[in-house]
Amino acid sequence: MDLHVVVPAGGSGTRLWPLSRATNPKFLHPLTGTERSLLQATFDRLAPLASAERVHVVTGTAHATAVARQLPEVPERNILIEPLARDSCAAIALAAAVIEQRSPGAVMASFAADHLIKDTEAFGRTVEEAVRGAAEGKLMTIGITPTRPETGYGYLQCSETAELGVQQQVLEFKEKPDLATATEYVESGRYLWNASMFVWRTDLFLRELAQRRPDVFEPVSEIARAWDTDDRVSVVEALWATIPKVAVEYAVMEPAAADGLVATVPGDFGWSDIGDFETLGELLSDTRDGAHVVSTPAAGEVVTVDSAGVIAVPAGGRLVATLGVQDLIVVDTPDAVLVCDRSRAQDIKRLTEILRDTGRTEYV
Amino acid sequence: MDLHVVVPAGGSGTRLWPLSRATNPKFLHPLTGTERSLLQATFDRLAPLASAERVHVVTGTAHATAVARQLPEVPERNILIEPLARDSCAAIALAAAVIEQRSPGAVMASFAADHLIKDTEAFGRTVEEAVRGAAEGKLMTIGITPTRPETGYGYLQCSETAELGVQQQVLEFKEKPDLATATEYVESGRYLWNASMFVWRTDLFLRELAQRRPDVFEPVSEIARAWDTDDRVSVVEALWATIPKVAVEYAVMEPAAADGLVATVPGDFGWSDIGDFETLGELLSDTRDGAHVVSTPAAGEVVTVDSAGVIAVPAGGRLVATLGVQDLIVVDTPDAVLVCDRSRAQDIKRLTEILRDTGRTEYV
Repeated sequence: MDLHVVVPAGGSGTRLWPLSRATNPKFLHPLTGTERSLLQATFDRLAPLASAERVHVVTGTAHATAVARQLPEVPERNILIEPLARDSCAAIALAAAVIEQRSPGAVMASFAADHLIKDTEAFGRTVEEAVRGAAEGKLMTIGITPTRPETGYGYLQCSETAELGVQQQVLEFKEKPDLATATEYVESGRYLWNASMFVWRTDLFLRELAQRRPDVFEPVSEIARAWDTDDRVSVVEALWATIPKVAVEYAVMEPAAADGLVATVPGDFGWSDIGDFETLGELLSDTRDGAHVVSTPAAGEVVTVDSAGVIAVPAGGRLVATLGVQDLIVVDTPDAVLVCDRSRAQDIKRLTEILRDTGRTEYV
Repeated sequence: MDLHVVVPAGGSGTRLWPLSRATNPKFLHPLTGTERSLLQATFDRLAPLASAERVHVVTGTAHATAVARQLPEVPERNILIEPLARDSCAAIALAAAVIEQRSPGAVMASFAADHLIKDTEAFGRTVEEAVRGAAEGKLMTIGITPTRPETGYGYLQCSETAELGVQQQVLEFKEKPDLATATEYVESGRYLWNASMFVWRTDLFLRELAQRRPDVFEPVSEIARAWDTDDRVSVVEALWATIPKVAVEYAVMEPAAADGLVATVPGDFGWSDIGDFETLGELLSDTRDGAHVVSTPAAGEVVTVDSAGVIAVPAGGRLVATLGVQDLIVVDTPDAVLVCDRSRAQDIKRLTEILRDTGRTEYV
């Protein structure tokens, strides 16, 4: 198999602040239990599915050099730099259109740069099945078999009870539900987590995009035609900013699902989006003296006394000491320290909003 | 008035770890609400009582240069450097013996380098009264009128109900009491806090020392005789290490009190020993958004969201952010971060012990 792969590398991971920053986002960090960043781990995981020449990364100007250095194997022409963030539809459409330009009728697969997957083999088998569906003309997604009634993810509503590895139709894309709804979803066995993993023929995706969102399709197509020419800079400058900001689910996948064009392969391969410090503590920590210590390179030491349920991220290289505290997240970085109750891990974004609103953007 | 003043500058302030360190102790820090260190504030407070030529500092080798630079007004010959820490009796006895050598029959007063006093005038009046007692031949102490049943201090038992500024006899020195005993002490009106402030004629103090602790008196006297000569180094090297470690209260003041030789002047001048982060938060913080922010030079910013009762010491220059936490002490320094429940402020010393025991002495 030699897929065309697209890795959208955007988003700053505000629930991982102050570890993840706008200028140094989650996907560039080695939150993998190894020295490799999430982006690099994503690349490594795709190696059996796609040669490096077929891997594309779509990223912003702020992170292009870091991406280029972290992934020296990826050809320069495959690092697609967006001058401005225009949400996932523009990013994925640009990649699809450039790939279609270079390899008409290619099958492409898109995977986020900042997810963690434990079972690479099971992941590969699931992708293979999705590729079969894509070759048959479906817009494919890979859905994650839910392990809990998570309210932080969107869901895919399947036509039947989900069966691992067995392709079936997606009836609807569901927004993040409340807990009662999420519980119903999980109990029904007919819902999967939407991890924004897509597999399709580029020509078919672009056809759907053209029908449903010509305001995205037209500038993107014109940019893609110019991409490998001397006109790229002037065309991008003229058109990119005109593209509306919209998520690919909303722009294409939801209406296409309503028309019966979307299918999914349920997967179960130890997926996590490493979305918050709770997840990080669960997946990537050593437990010492009642503290879950998340290891990062150049991590500082942690000393806890009479403390329980502490998630410590000593990423500033300093000593982190706790005494007589319970259920806290303590994150040390070179220029900011966070102390947060574990029950509030989802609200860390608020701090970044406050910092931004009060002009302390250097910390965001 | 031109007293001879002695400022013992020792002790590392382990309850203020990681702000205070063995190599950078409390008295060198500007924990005064100004740019002046506690040592400098002590010097400033004594200026109306003693000319700089009569101020002496007794300190260890680790802090001698910092002391010399923080107090350029103090003559070099008055900075008495102990080669090894030998507790307060040796330190005060050395200063008394050197002063007696230089100015026989002088009245000297001794005040710790790391205490904070709000009302300098009331302090001065209390010292003046103590000097009168010393001139009459008593070993004088200044006792602090207690404002709460503090279990962290020793107490002076007075012969009568303590009356502000009125000299009276000290019957006994009491060790740190339990809470019930401390409450009895405070309710009786006959106990004062022992702040280790002493005023006496050097010849009388040395006479009492000679009687009660010849093992301290003899080497100290020999060292003092050599102090202003070329023999100082060799005599100090030969004798200093032989001096037993003992507190001046235990060695001299307690037995002298039992013999009716000790008197006190009760004082009330906003005294604090800045002993822990609770005290620091109470005396030296601005309150912002539910956090008591202790200002130090080069302090970082503090942002708190849904947090209450936080004492923040952003002394590392970094941003300190809290979310959804209650009653915590958060201290940031260039190489260590502490998160401690406020109810455990007295136990921070344990952390320094653990760090020392586990070989992480660079943080102690």
